[in-house]
Amino acid sequence: MSPNPDWVKKLAVAAPRGSDLLAAERSASNLDVNQLSDYLFTKAALDTRDRILKILLNDPIFDKSQNYFQGRQERIQASLGKAKRLRQLQVQHSWSEDEYMIANDLLAEPTPYGLHASMFLKTLRDQGTPEQHKLFLTRAENYEIIGCYAQTELGHGSNVRGLETTATWNQSDKTFTLHSPQLTSSKWWIGSLGKVSNHAVVMAQLIIDGKRYGPHPFVVQIRDMNTHQPLPNVHVGDIGPKFGYNTMDNGFLLLNNLKIPHVNMLARFSRVDPSSGRYEQPANPAAIYGTLTWVRSTIVLQSGSVLARGVTIATRYSAVRRQFQDLDAKGNVGENQVLDYTMVQYRLLPLLAATFALHFTGRSMISLYEENQQRVARKQEPPKLKDANRRPGPEELNPGADLMADLHATSCALKSYGSTVAGEGLEVCRRACGGHGYSSFSGIGTWFADYLPTLTWEGDNYMLTQQVCRYLLKTARAVLAGKAGDNDTARILKTFLARRDTGAAFDVLASDSDLVDAYAWRVAYFTFEALQHRDVDKQSWNSLLVDFYRLSTAHAQYMVVKSFYGALVDPSQSSLDRQTTTVLQQLFRLFALHTLEREATEFFSSGATTTRQIQLARKAIMKLLGDIRPHAIRLVDAWSFPDWQLDSSLGREDGNVYEDLFHRASELNPLNKVVFDPYPHNNNILKGEEPKSKL
Amino acid sequence: MSPNPDWVKKLAVAAPRGSDLLAAERSASNLDVNQLSDYLFTKAALDTRDRILKILLNDPIFDKSQNYFQGRQERIQASLGKAKRLRQLQVQHSWSEDEYMIANDLLAEPTPYGLHASMFLKTLRDQGTPEQHKLFLTRAENYEIIGCYAQTELGHGSNVRGLETTATWNQSDKTFTLHSPQLTSSKWWIGSLGKVSNHAVVMAQLIIDGKRYGPHPFVVQIRDMNTHQPLPNVHVGDIGPKFGYNTMDNGFLLLNNLKIPHVNMLARFSRVDPSSGRYEQPANPAAIYGTLTWVRSTIVLQSGSVLARGVTIATRYSAVRRQFQDLDAKGNVGENQVLDYTMVQYRLLPLLAATFALHFTGRSMISLYEENQQRVARKQEPPKLKDANRRPGPEELNPGADLMADLHATSCALKSYGSTVAGEGLEVCRRACGGHGYSSFSGIGTWFADYLPTLTWEGDNYMLTQQVCRYLLKTARAVLAGKAGDNDTARILKTFLARRDTGAAFDVLASDSDLVDAYAWRVAYFTFEALQHRDVDKQSWNSLLVDFYRLSTAHAQYMVVKSFYGALVDPSQSSLDRQTTTVLQQLFRLFALHTLEREATEFFSSGATTTRQIQLARKAIMKLLGDIRPHAIRLVDAWSFPDWQLDSSLGREDGNVYEDLFHRASELNPLNKVVFDPYPHNNNILKGEEPKSKL
Repeated sequence: MSPNPDWVKKLAVAAPRGSDLLAAERSASNLDVNQLSDYLFTKAALDTRDRILKILLNDPIFDKSQNYFQGRQERIQASLGKAKRLRQLQVQHSWSEDEYMIANDLLAEPTPYGLHASMFLKTLRDQGTPEQHKLFLTRAENYEIIGCYAQTELGHGSNVRGLETTATWNQSDKTFTLHSPQLTSSKWWIGSLGKVSNHAVVMAQLIIDGKRYGPHPFVVQIRDMNTHQPLPNVHVGDIGPKFGYNTMDNGFLLLNNLKIPHVNMLARFSRVDPSSGRYEQPANPAAIYGTLTWVRSTIVLQSGSVLARGVTIATRYSAVRRQFQDLDAKGNVGENQVLDYTMVQYRLLPLLAATFALHFTGRSMISLYEENQQRVARKQEPPKLKDANRRPGPEELNPGADLMADLHATSCALKSYGSTVAGEGLEVCRRACGGHGYSSFSGIGTWFADYLPTLTWEGDNYMLTQQVCRYLLKTARAVLAGKAGDNDTARILKTFLARRDTGAAFDVLASDSDLVDAYAWRVAYFTFEALQHRDVDKQSWNSLLVDFYRLSTAHAQYMVVKSFYGALVDPSQSSLDRQTTTVLQQLFRLFALHTLEREATEFFSSGATTTRQIQLARKAIMKLLGDIRPHAIRLVDAWSFPDWQLDSSLGREDGNVYEDLFHRASELNPLNKVVFDPYPHNNNILKGEEPKSKL
Repeated sequence: MSPNPDWVKKLAVAAPRGSDLLAAERSASNLDVNQLSDYLFTKAALDTRDRILKILLNDPIFDKSQNYFQGRQERIQASLGKAKRLRQLQVQHSWSEDEYMIANDLLAEPTPYGLHASMFLKTLRDQGTPEQHKLFLTRAENYEIIGCYAQTELGHGSNVRGLETTATWNQSDKTFTLHSPQLTSSKWWIGSLGKVSNHAVVMAQLIIDGKRYGPHPFVVQIRDMNTHQPLPNVHVGDIGPKFGYNTMDNGFLLLNNLKIPHVNMLARFSRVDPSSGRYEQPANPAAIYGTLTWVRSTIVLQSGSVLARGVTIATRYSAVRRQFQDLDAKGNVGENQVLDYTMVQYRLLPLLAATFALHFTGRSMISLYEENQQRVARKQEPPKLKDANRRPGPEELNPGADLMADLHATSCALKSYGSTVAGEGLEVCRRACGGHGYSSFSGIGTWFADYLPTLTWEGDNYMLTQQVCRYLLKTARAVLAGKAGDNDTARILKTFLARRDTGAAFDVLASDSDLVDAYAWRVAYFTFEALQHRDVDKQSWNSLLVDFYRLSTAHAQYMVVKSFYGALVDPSQSSLDRQTTTVLQQLFRLFALHTLEREATEFFSSGATTTRQIQLARKAIMKLLGDIRPHAIRLVDAWSFPDWQLDSSLGREDGNVYEDLFHRASELNPLNKVVFDPYPHNNNILKGEEPKSKL
């Protein structure tokens, strides 16, 4: 294709232009965007982000203009180039871990170094001895060793106990033999393994003298340090394209009776004594539980900003896009901004509210976690376990573990709920953009596809809910037995029991704290109902899984509503002006009432609300949509995403949507550089090309 | 990467193998798969399909093994090759339109000829005069002219009235000047336009003597017939990559005062008299309405089979995949097939029921449409319209148009609902496959992404619901005035009114027909409620859009439940044996009760059911899941998808899931043919490659 001819270059977009529409939106609201941004992220964090952004923008390797056009192989090769430069910049600017992660966030794509820089280093650090740190960690931190964390297998994901890979101890030469006995034993989905790792932490069933001791971590060299070719008896490669995440080399790995030295079993928490061949557990693995809880809390915090990217794009574009005149309008008043349609508001504004709800919830999870870590650090004791195969439950690890157990269960419930809301919400945002939402240039599709694994990894969102309910049932039993500890779950269950004979009377439409209490009531009601099914009616665990999923979701929704409410009454929030707090309170009510309406059956069947209150909630929601509408653009502005991070024609801060779509299609699109031969009787595909004999 | 080493080739998958598990599933049910398939599709249709499949399988051009690996440009070029060969085969085997479509369905990807073969030919045929048929249609049918249907613009999708492209009549030289006055006037999203069309039917605002007559179709040559380069004053190209549908060349088109002859305005329904320059409407455009209704009915029918592909894959894989031992199991009994978990059943089996529900609904829509077409053909009359700009409503086109209007509204409601259920259901299926669902080899992701535009085109799924409600309100007004016609909507509204003072008493858990009636009651209740809001309370149209969306969905759900029930009591169904009819009835009840439970608030707030019935529905659903579970594999087998069409490792009919995943990853994956240089201090990406200077 020839470049845009002159007559095309002269064309303007139809008035009113997107830039004028967004400017009008911004001037119609007096919400202080900077104040709210600073409250959400702190000014210091935003300044750091801007400093790093400037560095990335100045480096041509980070150019994103071909991202949406590249095929998988070009994409992942380009991504490795970006990863290498990020690492070089990390060294050059002495970036902290946090600063390096900020740079990755701005890049907004997984890179082949992703699992090396996270799980591989973390596992070596947390589970290695000082000797192993010297041997592996230092070199890994230096990118001489590049590695991954190889747990999941072709035939086993969630059920770690079922892993097939074995590590057999050889007393004679003090080695382990790592082996994949079957095809289904192949490690699978392992990030950074497919193309870049030369080492892997392999989770394998430890076998000593024919006895199995469960899965343990082993450091295995898999590729030659110079040629990068697989070592003998190692079969490794990339598992192929995925729905998203295609800049990551998720890999497979099979091992054929490969011997590794004794020192390669990561030995901080358990080891084989080389002289006796005895299995030993020298230290307390509490940290592992802490790590999982921390990872999930991070997912909760991120879910808010993940969703906010989609909401920012869809909200801005809905203010720029105009379709149809209002049916009741008198005369020719022009087309409506689609954001003025209540159906669009009803789809987008509750998601906008959810972004803040999830952000505040994640923040409160992280501080609870940090508080708890300090507590654990103060009174850590080695556990006494009879069954060496069994991992200790968190409550066995220290006597005051109530908060820890509560935090663990809450992190499971919120990880499941938060990532589901974010993942499904992104697709709602994409669809709310109409036809253009389907273009890659919308920036939502790729982001959605890259995010979806979060709903499955770190605990599948359905599986996790069983852990939540196991904890809720256990707490309910303890409450009934008068032995419950001191945490919020016990508190809401006790409150419910105390009012069992009087029932609830929550003023959900007039009182914010009553609204929170209604959510707590619903959790307590269904917890005791589940307990009845399980302990009294003796129903099978399997028959209760659907109830459990609902109960865990109810628990998560309670936590989110409670955390959002907590943020509103938090003294630190007093730095905000009246307008901002008013809008935040409206967003809180929108989130809480909209969720209540969606789950209406549970609210009235538990007696938390009346059916009349639910009908009134619908009216209140429609009113809130109108209240929040004028501030919608400024609210997404407060999320403060740089255009470069969003990489979206529709979500541009300046509103120049159509100019940008046209520019990308007509000037950046490589498909427009070739000419097709369209006729079926010509077997060639490109004009002037030799006909393909096989056609 | 070296090919699989010998020790890998010898590896088997863990027992029990997928093939054994599926064989066991099939032998545990006595459902007659062939009988059910024949009932769904007819034996003749299945035979035709198999005959065509054999032809495609024998032709190497249709090889699918690289589909998931190719980037956009390779994919679309390969797709054009396939499209050319399909066209050659069509000629060679004298395939009918139907047979050609069956071949396309088996290929299971949109091709660049897609819009030529459908909308372009159809528009020329339906809207051209005999002279124009000779000039354009014959050559188009012969693939000398290759074309598209250019309606949507960069700035206007749904609102056809708002199109900016103009066609100005020049009386002096009897030509039209086609012009794109602004950048937003650019035609956009036009299938087959980007790379292959040399002609386009362009919808443009007709202007005669300064007066506007609304959008009309014009045939415009856009590329040279030999060089295939754009003609002067034409700017045309591909709009770039999309979330899916990347084998189609959706294009853009700008025209700069391009003159075309008088004969290029498609003139069957309206024309400009060349001698006087007067605008004339010589014929009845009823057929256009019929076409839209037909297209939507087809989408409803397809939605069942679109969803069935995902359900087939997820159900088969859930029978092969085993994770965790049942928590209540005694001793070591091995891991459960995940299909045995009630949470998995609860996600998949209602969707399995939905596939049949949508299939029977689509079938009944198509026969209603055909019946109606015959009726229209019998008594067609030219309409008398005062406003030339306004398209006549269907009821103006012939006096007995009640059925037509009803069909039109129903097709809108069902298109919106059916495609939403199918699109969202596919993502549920993908997630139900756990981690492997995310692999491209699952076959669900690409299919989902390719299907998603259906939720937006042929009437956006939200926009359409307004048309449905406009019709429902109109019918309700007619019923109240005693002037309603003879159709099902009027019937259910009258029935509701007759019992307004006594209320409903539907035995939804014991009687299938009562279950259908409860759905009808809910529609009628909310129709009159909406009428109250609009006509009495004088609420604005915009304030009611959320209610309208719900009402349209309720109407669609009623139609689906009614159609499924109709299929069960249809005499032709008597050819089915008792086992099959029993299972179909269970599927009907599962679909109807599961939908009722999801929409519980509306059922009890309309008084269609009691709250107790809703609680009991939950129990009934759990029971039905258990009843249907043993037949799940045979039920998806009855959908009868060839493996080649599904192109899925997880959905293989033989259950060899893990072998196939491994084969594709390790042997077909081109990324495993290169070796990366993993170290950040080496700027080259591939081993041995020159370092890139820019890194």
